[in-house]
Amino acid sequence: MAETGFRPIDGGLLAPEGFVASATAAGIKPEGLDMMLLHSQAPTSAAATITTNRFRAAPTYVTERNVADGAARTVIVNSGNANAATGPQGMVAAERMAELAAEATGVPAAEALVCSTGRIGIHLPMDRVEAAVPRLAEALSPENAHEAARAIMTTDTVPKECAVELELSGKTVRIGGAAKGAGMILPNMATMLCFICTDAAIEASALGGALREAVARSFNCISVDGDMSTNDTVIALANGRAGNATITDPDGPDYQRFAQALTHVAEDLAKKIARDGEGSSKFVEIRVTGGDTWHQARDVGRAVSRYNLVKTCIFGEDFNWGRIAAAVGASGVPVDPARCSIAIGGITAFSDGQPVDYDLEAAAEVMTRDEIEIHVDLGMGDAEAVCWTCDMTPEYVKLNAH
Amino acid sequence: MAETGFRPIDGGLLAPEGFVASATAAGIKPEGLDMMLLHSQAPTSAAATITTNRFRAAPTYVTERNVADGAARTVIVNSGNANAATGPQGMVAAERMAELAAEATGVPAAEALVCSTGRIGIHLPMDRVEAAVPRLAEALSPENAHEAARAIMTTDTVPKECAVELELSGKTVRIGGAAKGAGMILPNMATMLCFICTDAAIEASALGGALREAVARSFNCISVDGDMSTNDTVIALANGRAGNATITDPDGPDYQRFAQALTHVAEDLAKKIARDGEGSSKFVEIRVTGGDTWHQARDVGRAVSRYNLVKTCIFGEDFNWGRIAAAVGASGVPVDPARCSIAIGGITAFSDGQPVDYDLEAAAEVMTRDEIEIHVDLGMGDAEAVCWTCDMTPEYVKLNAH
Repeated sequence: MAETGFRPIDGGLLAPEGFVASATAAGIKPEGLDMMLLHSQAPTSAAATITTNRFRAAPTYVTERNVADGAARTVIVNSGNANAATGPQGMVAAERMAELAAEATGVPAAEALVCSTGRIGIHLPMDRVEAAVPRLAEALSPENAHEAARAIMTTDTVPKECAVELELSGKTVRIGGAAKGAGMILPNMATMLCFICTDAAIEASALGGALREAVARSFNCISVDGDMSTNDTVIALANGRAGNATITDPDGPDYQRFAQALTHVAEDLAKKIARDGEGSSKFVEIRVTGGDTWHQARDVGRAVSRYNLVKTCIFGEDFNWGRIAAAVGASGVPVDPARCSIAIGGITAFSDGQPVDYDLEAAAEVMTRDEIEIHVDLGMGDAEAVCWTCDMTPEYVKLNAH
Repeated sequence: MAETGFRPIDGGLLAPEGFVASATAAGIKPEGLDMMLLHSQAPTSAAATITTNRFRAAPTYVTERNVADGAARTVIVNSGNANAATGPQGMVAAERMAELAAEATGVPAAEALVCSTGRIGIHLPMDRVEAAVPRLAEALSPENAHEAARAIMTTDTVPKECAVELELSGKTVRIGGAAKGAGMILPNMATMLCFICTDAAIEASALGGALREAVARSFNCISVDGDMSTNDTVIALANGRAGNATITDPDGPDYQRFAQALTHVAEDLAKKIARDGEGSSKFVEIRVTGGDTWHQARDVGRAVSRYNLVKTCIFGEDFNWGRIAAAVGASGVPVDPARCSIAIGGITAFSDGQPVDYDLEAAAEVMTRDEIEIHVDLGMGDAEAVCWTCDMTPEYVKLNAH
């Protein structure tokens, strides 16, 4: 990875200097860790991207307001309850969570951000939240990255962590992240939470720009079931402890290198979410080339990644490329079938507008793999995009039935 | 039904005077009826609506071109092969089907329409089609409505037929229809085929207007899996045999009454498709009231009908109204949650922006029913729309895996 300028490291969310976290079982879920507290020991630049769902949860309003000034030092999170569609009482609860977290970490309430994930339409058991926060405050430590990643899980089967380091103006800078999400996953921030810490020195506006770009090319390129959630939030906190020359210029080389590393962390976590899709048995990468623009290629990739009939035939290990054609055609992008090509696992089935003969045995073998690569070429321009999803299985339906 | 001005009758597609049809097993499917021929014994006014998928099948181009002059007397249909993503060879096959059908029924080739449905990306076995058409021509009869409805089925478990009669200018007019479709069903004409015959006398432009309106409020309001197909086509043929005063004025009372009856036939067939959704166990009606416009209410209804997590919890008999809220919020319509209400089976769970207490036992009972009614009030205006779908089951996934 020499040419990319960053290296993977251990330590997850807390790999950067000057961040602490803790996790506890507050009793919001029937069992297991369900609350997380994250805190920066120094002032930060902060940025967030939030779901566009009109029924978005109360905590997303608190986070949006408190991050608006580009500073936040504490994040409090619960799993097991989304605090969405909970009306004014839900807003009171979300504000109270921010207050509790701020008090516990010695910062103003306006420096605390709040996230919730879980069932929609149920009031949070605030007595349990109130009782848990002092425990969380006491347990804050730079050693708790793994517990923090576990505490935000709902139907996830594995925690999702990633960290990298890179050199900026002669200093070593670290970026660490943790994410959760397995169902109700659709680009545009859909329930998916991600927290990214960095000890880089970067102005809030530059951090926000880098975060939006990273989210567009990572979390907004995955789909598990095409359902946009009420709670999705990505938060980035940068506390400057690495001592690099503060990044301010979005055209400068330090910004570019930081943004590239941040995008890598986000993409890695996004792929881990797609890989852990509810009930899934296979991971699917959809590469779309030949678009006029990146957005066009991305829209085609997203359409394929959301098409239930593509996802079911991948589960069934059926080399049914015709369903990919149908999904491309339904994407809303003005593709010309006569210029399109479609391949699965490197085997071209449709080229320049016509089906082509392929080796049936090789095609059958490709479909048995755990990772399936779909390649669509639109034959229009030079832009390309990559999207990720998983197959759809009977287990997905069963898991979401109750 | 006195106030609606039309009455249900027997006879399906061939209930109107002057239409004949036939069905045969051509060998395109491994077994069973897979070709249908429909013919009007008199010249017609004709209209069609066709999928917007960019990868739409070759026959849709032939049908679009041949119906453009508002006249067509013969329709040839095969199931088991979509003739989509088949390039120039597919176009040649579709043109040949039109020629064969026209010759067999003694009309110009430009009076024949063509539909295909089935697997995408495989060339049609034209030798079998050629061999079957003479058999189809010989068997044409006004008695074959039921066989015709069966011959167009793919994964459908039951044929879908409907017919009504009404009085126009002192004459009895009949409208009959047959439809197929069970998977890959999404509004915007998605694989769903429907053929509607009427002995009404109506100009082609008036018929086209009535058909577009009927499709908007019927087939474009159903969803099985949200996947738009390559082949969807609705064709209406009117041969004037009823002898009513020809309908020309779309503002006149005869047009209104005819359009209302046509919409009823389309809606009845659309609901039969949703009810027969692949692997489904429950039928779901989504009524959205309080929209500013019909389109807005319809968009919310469609969003709910497409949301996998709503469809899975209906399968699981879980009164999970929060997922309906998430779907409403993700619809793209600028709803205000504070003015929304949500009820399932008459039990209100969310009202004016807040969750409300409801009887848990009654809620559990509602979810056990075979037909689930979801009601969303947007609290904005007076417009309303109704959409239909089915639950999503493990059987849906298994059925579409291969």
